Amino acid sequence: MFQNLTYAKLFQDYLDLKHFPVSPSNLYDPIRYILSLSGKRIRPMLVLMGAALFDEKYIEESLPASAAIEFFHNFSLIHDDIMDKAPLRRGQPTVHQKWDDSVAILSGDGLLIQAYLELAKCPKEKVPQLLDVFNKLAVEVCEGQQYDMDFEKVDRVAESAYIDMIRLKTSVLLGGALQLGAILADAHPDAQELLYAFGVNLGIAFQLQDDILDVYGDPATFGKQVGGDILSNKKTILYVKLRDLATDADQEVLTNLLRTDLVAEPHKIEKMKDLYAKYDIKGSATRLKEEFTAIAYDKLHAIDVEMGRKDALFRLADALMQREQ
Amino acid sequence: MFQNLTYAKLFQDYLDLKHFPVSPSNLYDPIRYILSLSGKRIRPMLVLMGAALFDEKYIEESLPASAAIEFFHNFSLIHDDIMDKAPLRRGQPTVHQKWDDSVAILSGDGLLIQAYLELAKCPKEKVPQLLDVFNKLAVEVCEGQQYDMDFEKVDRVAESAYIDMIRLKTSVLLGGALQLGAILADAHPDAQELLYAFGVNLGIAFQLQDDILDVYGDPATFGKQVGGDILSNKKTILYVKLRDLATDADQEVLTNLLRTDLVAEPHKIEKMKDLYAKYDIKGSATRLKEEFTAIAYDKLHAIDVEMGRKDALFRLADALMQREQ
Repeated sequence: MFQNLTYAKLFQDYLDLKHFPVSPSNLYDPIRYILSLSGKRIRPMLVLMGAALFDEKYIEESLPASAAIEFFHNFSLIHDDIMDKAPLRRGQPTVHQKWDDSVAILSGDGLLIQAYLELAKCPKEKVPQLLDVFNKLAVEVCEGQQYDMDFEKVDRVAESAYIDMIRLKTSVLLGGALQLGAILADAHPDAQELLYAFGVNLGIAFQLQDDILDVYGDPATFGKQVGGDILSNKKTILYVKLRDLATDADQEVLTNLLRTDLVAEPHKIEKMKDLYAKYDIKGSATRLKEEFTAIAYDKLHAIDVEMGRKDALFRLADALMQREQ
Repeated sequence: MFQNLTYAKLFQDYLDLKHFPVSPSNLYDPIRYILSLSGKRIRPMLVLMGAALFDEKYIEESLPASAAIEFFHNFSLIHDDIMDKAPLRRGQPTVHQKWDDSVAILSGDGLLIQAYLELAKCPKEKVPQLLDVFNKLAVEVCEGQQYDMDFEKVDRVAESAYIDMIRLKTSVLLGGALQLGAILADAHPDAQELLYAFGVNLGIAFQLQDDILDVYGDPATFGKQVGGDILSNKKTILYVKLRDLATDADQEVLTNLLRTDLVAEPHKIEKMKDLYAKYDIKGSATRLKEEFTAIAYDKLHAIDVEMGRKDALFRLADALMQREQ
């Protein structure tokens, strides 16, 4: 789909050559395991595409940075899954489920440190700058995860706070991945910044789209259970907007609906969709998504390299945002 | 005692100027909390002393690296305390006890990343080398923690494996702290290596001494409950050596003793000490400790700087090893 096969293969070949120590096995087996659950490898691909945007000759030496990003992402999955008590990840048992919490905590820590080990393999003169960008996104992803957990405990979240949470939790990693590639390719700081902003805004748009598709997606193509967010009372952009707009009476309807499950209320999903429809939540969430998508495309357009070089990134963005080319 | 007051104050002043963000409070409050539980700050002091050994003018610019070491140490305390289900740390509730496991996992992650943020503040041309040393010790501390957890689940551990575990879990951090200081002071690679080896061997000797004092220490000065390791069936150098030397009959006596507690066996500590005495475990553990102490002192002697500059480190080693000066 949106996998660029050349970059994906380059990254996979690099990963296949990587040999973690055999012992202690309870530290390194979980690391090998999570990395083998084949994700889409979007983030490491972004590092390589960020470099290739300026000059293909830097792709090869961007591989360690792409591994740093993928390792960081998988570290955060291991630890988030403990906090969320998630039993499955990519259809397989999570690390804390297959082993236990202690193993998951420590192997997550180990994988985060492995990310920094990869970063240290980059060309020496670029390491300080790469480290700064990486540290910033790493701090922000932790902040985003904390806001996400905080939000689950309250009824109302301001829309701006919700957007900031998804920016921190999921989008700065995409922007940062692209920026690492740009740094490795000696891109001008202005171009680096635009590429970062492209990634961050695209990431926010993608997350908003995910919230929308969870309720309105085609069950045949969505890949997850449609309505899953409603059933688990998840805070989404739809929920946040509904809380913002609903009358006092409907606030109460909403609060009561949140207290039910499919046994008490077999039509929970439909009733929530009725509320959404009453306030055109789908429409306003979609408009918000499109605003962020438009900003992302503008940033990519504004980068000072010839248009042809941007094709791969535009195609990736189109695929992620399910836009016709 | 073994606090070098000048260095300790320098570090504390640096830490006091450090302001973590206010929000999200569930991420940064636990970080502020663990750093405020006043430890002895030995590890950050070692960074400053490692630099001062070669040239006092580098002490100031070694402060961020000393913070990196202290942050890393406190990150490992937060996560280890979750894994060990420890209720108290330095007499105060542990982070996971005061908040919860999720907060402790994420704030530990955040503190580890803060360590790398401090490292990134060091002089740019030295960052790659500092990062290599830091990454190596960070990986090894995780490996040591995993071996420690693995060992708790088995009856027998080879003495060499036990020594290697304490080297990884506790000693490489001391050696690495000193080496960071040496790198910052532009020390010759040979001197760096000797200083690292001094720290590692001193760390092993100190841990062995801790095992011995837990059983044979003076209750008035030891600070912990004497016999605590015996009551909790902890693997220590004494236990490891006893398993190595005991006859088949005494292996059984030992195994049965491990199954008891103070209710079933009010004389558990005395009975274990009888077994230790039968095989002169205290003597052979003390000799092993002294071997590592001697190696440590030899390494410090071998460093090519004038003897007077080494006084502070010799005094610290004497104090840690409770040797008369």
